[in-house]
Amino acid sequence: MPLEIERKFLVANDVWRAHVTHSVEMRQGYLTREGQASVRVRLEGEAAKLNIKAAVVGSARAEYEYDIPPADCRELLATLCVGRVEKTRHYVPAHGAHDGAVWEIDEFVGDNAGLVVAEIELQAADAAFEQPAWLGRELTDDRRYYNHYLALHPYASWPETERG
Amino acid sequence: MPLEIERKFLVANDVWRAHVTHSVEMRQGYLTREGQASVRVRLEGEAAKLNIKAAVVGSARAEYEYDIPPADCRELLATLCVGRVEKTRHYVPAHGAHDGAVWEIDEFVGDNAGLVVAEIELQAADAAFEQPAWLGRELTDDRRYYNHYLALHPYASWPETERG
Repeated sequence: MPLEIERKFLVANDVWRAHVTHSVEMRQGYLTREGQASVRVRLEGEAAKLNIKAAVVGSARAEYEYDIPPADCRELLATLCVGRVEKTRHYVPAHGAHDGAVWEIDEFVGDNAGLVVAEIELQAADAAFEQPAWLGRELTDDRRYYNHYLALHPYASWPETERG
Repeated sequence: MPLEIERKFLVANDVWRAHVTHSVEMRQGYLTREGQASVRVRLEGEAAKLNIKAAVVGSARAEYEYDIPPADCRELLATLCVGRVEKTRHYVPAHGAHDGAVWEIDEFVGDNAGLVVAEIELQAADAAFEQPAWLGRELTDDRRYYNHYLALHPYASWPETERG
């Protein structure tokens, strides 16, 4: 079974911006409201993908991903999705982790503006990695920061006291 | 938008069996319980497909379909699907309809055993087609006969008075 193992954090400051190698605009939506799986379609620059992920909370989740035609993806986003998220994903090389590891830093826009989240994909849930100085509180086990949750309950709708 | 236009009927008797050109075993499951779309994965003989359909009742529904690896499909059926349906699909050439039209006759097994449903795909919702003598009551607008509904509420669980 293809497993996605990742850990997720808030960012504490903007120092990471100096290390961005590239950025991609992403627009994604969900075909499921609840259930055992989330089904997501996403435009990533010129590409489009459909993704199925087990709806469990934690660092390791079964994940399946397929390319789909971008035109289909745009239609699905416009018609059949029950929640949407827009963000820019910035890529920052990670140091001290396994070869080629990269921080993916999602800067949300629209109804989730103000939220910036950093994720790193690991080979194992307990794999060591260097925590850069700009890293904030860990969110791995907090389902409110899952994109599926943000699509249905955008950050702008959260009580002030629950943000950050 | 890719539209699927089809009409669905019960079968009144077994006369169609003499005209079957080929049959395929199908095992399918759903990643959604409710919502604007149904997301289905299906093993069709050796092939596997993921299908997204608008969850509206009637003869015309937006539909998107993609090939996926059969191994992924088997895992998804075993782990993340919320409802499953097993059936044999029999193909019977249609007469008097547009060129190449075919009756797809689904003979359900497992928890939906006893149910046999015939579908024809049309170029338009009001397209003419010849109704063979073995055709029974029309089901096109009855959502209880949608495979998604049958996956969650199998035929065996229906009150005797509601069947057929």
